[in-house]
Amino acid sequence: MTSLYQHGTLAMLMGKQLQGTITAAELLKHGDTGMGTLTGLNGEVIILEGQVYQAQSDGRVNHITDLDTLLPFASIHFYKPTQTLPFDQVDFETLSDKLKSAQLQNIFSSIKFHADFSRMHIRIAPQQVPPFPSLLEVATNQPEFEVADISGTLMGYYAPEIFNGPTAAGWHLHFLSDDKSFSGHVLDFSAINVTGTLQVFDEFVQHFPIENAGFRGMSLDLDGLHAGIEASEGGKK
Amino acid sequence: MTSLYQHGTLAMLMGKQLQGTITAAELLKHGDTGMGTLTGLNGEVIILEGQVYQAQSDGRVNHITDLDTLLPFASIHFYKPTQTLPFDQVDFETLSDKLKSAQLQNIFSSIKFHADFSRMHIRIAPQQVPPFPSLLEVATNQPEFEVADISGTLMGYYAPEIFNGPTAAGWHLHFLSDDKSFSGHVLDFSAINVTGTLQVFDEFVQHFPIENAGFRGMSLDLDGLHAGIEASEGGKK
Repeated sequence: MTSLYQHGTLAMLMGKQLQGTITAAELLKHGDTGMGTLTGLNGEVIILEGQVYQAQSDGRVNHITDLDTLLPFASIHFYKPTQTLPFDQVDFETLSDKLKSAQLQNIFSSIKFHADFSRMHIRIAPQQVPPFPSLLEVATNQPEFEVADISGTLMGYYAPEIFNGPTAAGWHLHFLSDDKSFSGHVLDFSAINVTGTLQVFDEFVQHFPIENAGFRGMSLDLDGLHAGIEASEGGKK
Repeated sequence: MTSLYQHGTLAMLMGKQLQGTITAAELLKHGDTGMGTLTGLNGEVIILEGQVYQAQSDGRVNHITDLDTLLPFASIHFYKPTQTLPFDQVDFETLSDKLKSAQLQNIFSSIKFHADFSRMHIRIAPQQVPPFPSLLEVATNQPEFEVADISGTLMGYYAPEIFNGPTAAGWHLHFLSDDKSFSGHVLDFSAINVTGTLQVFDEFVQHFPIENAGFRGMSLDLDGLHAGIEASEGGKK
């Protein structure tokens, strides 16, 4: 079976720990497909076939080739699908329902599919500078973009409810267009001509930046944390 | 750095999934020091130097040599201490305070120490049969034992607050006496002549029994889950 590797936690971002603590090179030892963000919440990262792309908050997309680039939070896995997706059309509202027979609610899983999107609505976190705010503060003012009729690849993770805190429960999806000009954190979408796969994980590996003093000393307000995750990351369950 | 490996979740036990899903042999591939329980919550398991001991609810202690024995929930690591413990005397109330300088609150860690215990208060979960109740129901009726003046080894884990659900946040401690006649889940203790170690983990590996239909289909009540963990496992934070 296969592992999902996560560096850092969403709780850390809520606790203002936005400095990068893993290099892209180190991260890529744990997979070829994934997502994350850069130091200071600088954009939305999507990793496909071992290539790292960053959507910047001005809407531009960078292909990151400097593998010393640091990330404070990222999830990655080796693409080894469990099954092909059992639908041809889907939108964010119906995604969980269409995967009901796969019984994903208590496990970690990933979807990756290519499609023609009649609608793709994304948001891109804007870069912050020290002293860093929390993810929640950033979430109140994030550029959003929406386009019609775009082809591309959507990849994302499902996390069980009890892991809300380490990560965001429910679906967390990122998108990259075929021409690599449009990318971000998916808020909503509608897709046809879907071809892709589902991968279920039997292991969730949570890696902590234990050498980082800010992380070690961080205080957390748990109620605030859960409200903040809902406000900033809350995807469809 | 080192990993803490966990098979199953506390949430599963709350969801009545008490059937064993990993063998002791498989578990021991991931460490030599740990804790857990057997099918049906049959007692409290402590693993020291690769040997598996089960405290039964009648107070007896078994050395488990049949490594086909199944566990629904267990945590294990390879003993590779980070530092020696900076105190000679401790009780459950003062444990976190005495480790304050180690800044453990946001990471997983383990302590293991030998001591002379002026007081050792334990509880031992009684074996359940199908159809299984939840851990919470079992917790309302668990045999407790208390002895004075006993020497032995205490080992346990600290889990950060955001992992309350996958496991129990705070300290979770098990005990085995030197003569291997007294063992269980620690409710309270007072110790002198402490010699032991602290180990911090940079990875928490959560393994799920994804082939188990009961687990895959399980429904969880999150509020009930957190109340249940507090009632059944709640240790000192």
